[in-house]
Amino acid sequence: MLKGRLEAFSDGVIAIIITIMVLELKVPHGNDLAALRPLIPVFLSYVLSFIYIGIYWNNHHHLLQVVRLVNGRILWANLHLLFWLSLVPFVTGWMGENNFAALPVALYGIIFHHGKDSPLAIAVGKDFKGKISMIVYAIAILLAFVNSWLACVLYILVAIMWLIPDRRIERILFP
Amino acid sequence: MLKGRLEAFSDGVIAIIITIMVLELKVPHGNDLAALRPLIPVFLSYVLSFIYIGIYWNNHHHLLQVVRLVNGRILWANLHLLFWLSLVPFVTGWMGENNFAALPVALYGIIFHHGKDSPLAIAVGKDFKGKISMIVYAIAILLAFVNSWLACVLYILVAIMWLIPDRRIERILFP
Amino acid sequence: MLKGRLEAFSDGVIAIIITIMVLELKVPHGNDLAALRPLIPVFLSYVLSFIYIGIYWNNHHHLLQVVRLVNGRILWANLHLLFWLSLVPFVTGWMGENNFAALPVALYGIIFHHGKDSPLAIAVGKDFKGKISMIVYAIAILLAFVNSWLACVLYILVAIMWLIPDRRIERILFP
Amino acid sequence: MLKGRLEAFSDGVIAIIITIMVLELKVPHGNDLAALRPLIPVFLSYVLSFIYIGIYWNNHHHLLQVVRLVNGRILWANLHLLFWLSLVPFVTGWMGENNFAALPVALYGIIFHHGKDSPLAIAVGKDFKGKISMIVYAIAILLAFVNSWLACVLYILVAIMWLIPDRRIERILFP
Repeated sequence: MLKGRLEAFSDGVIAIIITIMVLELKVPHGNDLAALRPLIPVFLSYVLSFIYIGIYWNNHHHLLQVVRLVNGRILWANLHLLFWLSLVPFVTGWMGENNFAALPVALYGIIFHHGKDSPLAIAVGKDFKGKISMIVYAIAILLAFVNSWLACVLYILVAIMWLIPDRRIERILFP
Repeated sequence: MLKGRLEAFSDGVIAIIITIMVLELKVPHGNDLAALRPLIPVFLSYVLSFIYIGIYWNNHHHLLQVVRLVNGRILWANLHLLFWLSLVPFVTGWMGENNFAALPVALYGIIFHHGKDSPLAIAVGKDFKGKISMIVYAIAILLAFVNSWLACVLYILVAIMWLIPDRRIERILFP
Repeated sequence: MLKGRLEAFSDGVIAIIITIMVLELKVPHGNDLAALRPLIPVFLSYVLSFIYIGIYWNNHHHLLQVVRLVNGRILWANLHLLFWLSLVPFVTGWMGENNFAALPVALYGIIFHHGKDSPLAIAVGKDFKGKISMIVYAIAILLAFVNSWLACVLYILVAIMWLIPDRRIERILFP
Repeated sequence: MLKGRLEAFSDGVIAIIITIMVLELKVPHGNDLAALRPLIPVFLSYVLSFIYIGIYWNNHHHLLQVVRLVNGRILWANLHLLFWLSLVPFVTGWMGENNFAALPVALYGIIFHHGKDSPLAIAVGKDFKGKISMIVYAIAILLAFVNSWLACVLYILVAIMWLIPDRRIERILFP
């Protein structure tokens, strides 16, 4: 199989995931600010997931760049990653509609932890940021049952870490 | 990253946005014209947004044409633009279901204003039409609280301005 | 603009239209044949629209094959066609849920009539099958108010005409 | 028609099918484990269908690899296959929401049996695994009315057979 078709299929799936998440933002019946207020947590969880899916899409490209031959193993490793990502709209909606309660926030971390832990990432070799993310996700999942907002702060920190260009963060951590 | 994959991903997201908007046109229970009547504002807001997304898709191509190297900055500037566009189905549905009330109409302008104001557009350099659009959006957002229909007229004027081929409009404004 | 990107975007939109139509097949609560029975008209209208969208996708390719330069006019003619197609999931659901009542069946013909009548088709030059389709759609739209099932038979005949390879049908009509 | 566009369109449709299935996982109102419990059968049927669609996507590539010229026949054979796949989200949701009752489980087998039996597969020549799958599906459809869980076990066995690389399974069956 040509890598191009694997990329195109994955791009399609990721494009759909990032877009159907917005369907959880149900159109409210009222037309004033009060009608929008209950949507705030749903919107915030949408923003977080949009950034996360963006990061995964960006990383997906890097993972595939290393791949030369697309065999059955790579194909299923890729589908394994897409499977975890496909659950993101569900957990994003659940987290948002329950105002960032403990269990949804923990499940949020579990899904991204599995995505990061996918055979595709392992096959290519885990990078520094990937290892840090795994540890922070694990802490956040446990922390969610103590204070779910602190877990969310950790998720945001992981996102920020991926948004900062690589060299800068390495210079901060290893000066 | 190759520009082709960025284009393909953006095309996918924009194609989904323009298509899932129609899901707000909920199938009515009756089968006569009276059953269709409450759908008229939803349909009109759908038509307006379909044209707008079409304009943004067309402009997106022009923005990327100037881009040579796809680095992290371009990638996130692109996702920033797609984020605002992804909110269009929500605000289109909200505006339609509330019969073009003040707040939804204002939010409609805010979302497209942000889309136009996205780092991708700024990185490439704002064109004449882009500047005019920004000013008209800003007027329309305020006007929405006075008379939301007048704001809609402004949105339609912006759309018409983009639909007219470039040379003709410049000849009208600078004879 | 390269024709490739126009094709890819159109393919994306048509792929989404043909797939989201199935969302109108709402999962029933019961688990016996009786639970499936009310879905039969919805399923039949889905099958008809699936074939129609398949025909339009096939024709779309032929239309674009003639196009050399993608200018603003072609782009908007293409979006005009996609707009009418984007309404197909709505009218398919409406027709199915109202058991092929007069008005939904007429609207079904109106939407495909407009799709066929789109500037893209006109720009390329109407073919023989296209002209026949237009006439049959017009008859079916009026016939729907007399007997909506007869109108459906006409829609099926149009679909069959497009499914038969070209030479064979011309040999039948002009022996 | 170029094979590339047929592939791109099919990839788009399959990417949408595999992703919109997750919309059947409706966000629950509660935020504890009890709220997730009723989703377990829906989730399990989602996992099974995700793997199946992955297998079909992989096979689709092999089918098209043999195709040289894309004529009307190949095009419609391909749409015939996509039609059956497009029904997968519906039957997956139905099977999950009815806790793997007899009729939904039988319909599940019928849909995949038809997909496997599609003219595209026949045109290319049925492989060994394809023949086995057809027989197992037929047994599972009948078995569903005796014990629907046993039918599900057969579906899982078919999936496992396709996931194992080809040589290994042939070595087991013909030592």
